[in-house]
Amino acid sequence: MSDVASSAGSWADEPIRTNRTSDATVTVTRGGVPLANEPVTVAQTRHAFLFGCTGFQFLPEGLESGGLRLSNISADQIEAGEKLARLQEAWFTLFNFVTLPFYWGNFEPQRGKPDTARLLAGAKWFVDRGIPIKGHPLTWHTVQPDWLLDLTTEEVLAEQRRRIAREVGDFKHLIHAWDAINEVVIMPVFDRKDNGITRLCRKIGRVATIRMAFETAREADPGAFLLLNDFDMSTAFECLIEAVLAAGITVDALGLQSHMHQGYWGEEKTLDVLERFSRYGLPIHFTESTIMSGHLMPPEYVDLNDYQVADWPTTEVGESRQADEVVRHYKTLLSHPAVKAMTYWDIADDGWLHAPSGLVRADYTPKPSYEAMKSLIKGAWWLAPTDMATDAEGKLRFNGWLGDYELSARGATATFSLSDTGASAVAVAIG
Amino acid sequence: MSDVASSAGSWADEPIRTNRTSDATVTVTRGGVPLANEPVTVAQTRHAFLFGCTGFQFLPEGLESGGLRLSNISADQIEAGEKLARLQEAWFTLFNFVTLPFYWGNFEPQRGKPDTARLLAGAKWFVDRGIPIKGHPLTWHTVQPDWLLDLTTEEVLAEQRRRIAREVGDFKHLIHAWDAINEVVIMPVFDRKDNGITRLCRKIGRVATIRMAFETAREADPGAFLLLNDFDMSTAFECLIEAVLAAGITVDALGLQSHMHQGYWGEEKTLDVLERFSRYGLPIHFTESTIMSGHLMPPEYVDLNDYQVADWPTTEVGESRQADEVVRHYKTLLSHPAVKAMTYWDIADDGWLHAPSGLVRADYTPKPSYEAMKSLIKGAWWLAPTDMATDAEGKLRFNGWLGDYELSARGATATFSLSDTGASAVAVAIG
Repeated sequence: MSDVASSAGSWADEPIRTNRTSDATVTVTRGGVPLANEPVTVAQTRHAFLFGCTGFQFLPEGLESGGLRLSNISADQIEAGEKLARLQEAWFTLFNFVTLPFYWGNFEPQRGKPDTARLLAGAKWFVDRGIPIKGHPLTWHTVQPDWLLDLTTEEVLAEQRRRIAREVGDFKHLIHAWDAINEVVIMPVFDRKDNGITRLCRKIGRVATIRMAFETAREADPGAFLLLNDFDMSTAFECLIEAVLAAGITVDALGLQSHMHQGYWGEEKTLDVLERFSRYGLPIHFTESTIMSGHLMPPEYVDLNDYQVADWPTTEVGESRQADEVVRHYKTLLSHPAVKAMTYWDIADDGWLHAPSGLVRADYTPKPSYEAMKSLIKGAWWLAPTDMATDAEGKLRFNGWLGDYELSARGATATFSLSDTGASAVAVAIG
Repeated sequence: MSDVASSAGSWADEPIRTNRTSDATVTVTRGGVPLANEPVTVAQTRHAFLFGCTGFQFLPEGLESGGLRLSNISADQIEAGEKLARLQEAWFTLFNFVTLPFYWGNFEPQRGKPDTARLLAGAKWFVDRGIPIKGHPLTWHTVQPDWLLDLTTEEVLAEQRRRIAREVGDFKHLIHAWDAINEVVIMPVFDRKDNGITRLCRKIGRVATIRMAFETAREADPGAFLLLNDFDMSTAFECLIEAVLAAGITVDALGLQSHMHQGYWGEEKTLDVLERFSRYGLPIHFTESTIMSGHLMPPEYVDLNDYQVADWPTTEVGESRQADEVVRHYKTLLSHPAVKAMTYWDIADDGWLHAPSGLVRADYTPKPSYEAMKSLIKGAWWLAPTDMATDAEGKLRFNGWLGDYELSARGATATFSLSDTGASAVAVAIG
């Protein structure tokens, strides 16, 4: 484990173990008989916790390009393929959950010509690699198609419903989690850019807009997992959640953004946010966490998009600070039982706002933050293949991270999962 | 009309006339016959708009003192009676609506010994003078009795219900309007002072707390006019209102505070607040407006109560600025049709926070703001006794401020009211 992974946020190590591991008793049988005093190998294959990241870079640039490659590297750059392979390896080493973009304005810039085929290919690519997907977002007032501005509010409502039903339906075999709606606290009073969704939300109200988003998505896929996502961590979002609960709308998880371009929140604020938003008994997803490895955005910027710089370099000092803060942030989140997912936004520098916010640099070489998180996610928090032996009753006892496991004995392999904290009993029948 | 009353905020004069006056046609009859070509005198007796103010100074100091007098002046000050008479005249010249204090911690500092008799005497004093009363507040997390801290949350809930039912019931013959609950946005996350109501609200949630407050008060007096009052003008209060509406709780008016110890809001912010909070179709009361005539509280104070100064003088420059801002504030509010009441907090200096926020000074001499408002409320916005004459059909036509009127003709007097903007027809039968 890297030094920073070990030392930073060590206060959380104990609650993390309490909230993320199980004291497992695994009874191994073969042909219905306990396999006593048998050497076995146990290996974790997946975290129950959703270590998420955006995966925009892995989308096909265009279907005509015939394959998956970086969208921001020209075809004549000979290292492009090599670089992408490096990014892919970095990504799949850490993450088990991906967020893919469904911004309406980009997805359907021309009315009736959605980007469905390209996204289907990209989604299938992740599913083929065992990665569950969240689509982001179905309803939002930003990145809207301009053609909505020519419609009446009633028509915008109909188009928004149609768009939700279409995407959720078209991707039902690949995508089960969606940000049903994004940033509703500001939605009806957003005044930076005229758009159809702000008009709609202002007219029918926040609760009716949220109900429309959730019910339309739910109808298109009754098994969908739907989030209410926001960046506003003030009492306003609490009040909005209470409105949604009072209205009887079923929300599967709260999505909390945490783009920290202006500085790491620190444990105190993060724990306060967790305490306040866990009061509703809903799972919490940290959906958009970003931590800088360069200078911070000045605090006077209220809308992060206003900070436009040509060059925002990552620095050695910044990378060291980032590693410390990234570890502390993950540890703080994992220490709280309500948090079920954490999506880093995003893996490499030079993405949104050109910020040095990646865990790898623009050339995809790993930063200290990447190494630190790897030494946790695939190190201290992970059971690598481990030789054990069953006792006289065919039982193994070990403390394991919640997730999926493989058990091998006598040349055969079986799988099991640890789902519950505290003591748990699992039965494994080997071939 | 004073210069400042005429010039400040003159953009609003036209919408004020549109939203606050009626083009009245009054048909005067006597014995069922139109009183044609008859000289009459018409005089306004009351504004429909609620020009409110706190009236704490007029409460009896204690029942044993045998009467109504200033609570902050010792009995041996010989001018006390004279001063109070001056304040009383100033108050009743401007205002037609009073807010009286029902802070639980002061009202029932010792469990089971409420200050009912003293408040009943004070309330009756106002009612005898024709002034409707609002009680403030029935539920709040500040100024709480310490004895609540010894109770379980369930007991706090029972006590809070009992307290609401008791006050609303005991004052039903005198008080019809109540701030049912105050400052719920911050209530469950208020961390400045441990108190039973924050504990309760944190446990059962904002919506359930609001429901309890409104339904308990409504049950004790089905005719009560109940407000949801807050200082938080952000999207948080919008979201809370949407929660309350989604929950089906009947709110009679939204109460918006505006303590401007840190500076006048200005027209732009005030109009934005009005636009945002009028979207819910509920009447708006500006419940607590305060404008300084001395230096401003520094902007870094978040909780106004933290600014403790021994001396906060009113100044000549400050009084001139205040007159301008007070006029602009009233004009902005009256320009918007949703605003039905505006309570100034409070009439004299050296009240809450010792702030120079009065319309009269600590010695009760009038400031320019007082003179300006008087020249509006009882001048430009008022129909003083005016001689008119009916036409051949017994009709009078005039543009009048919404409110109550007396009409005198042939030595007899009748009353009528103008309730609707635009053209209105009223019939008056004279003795």
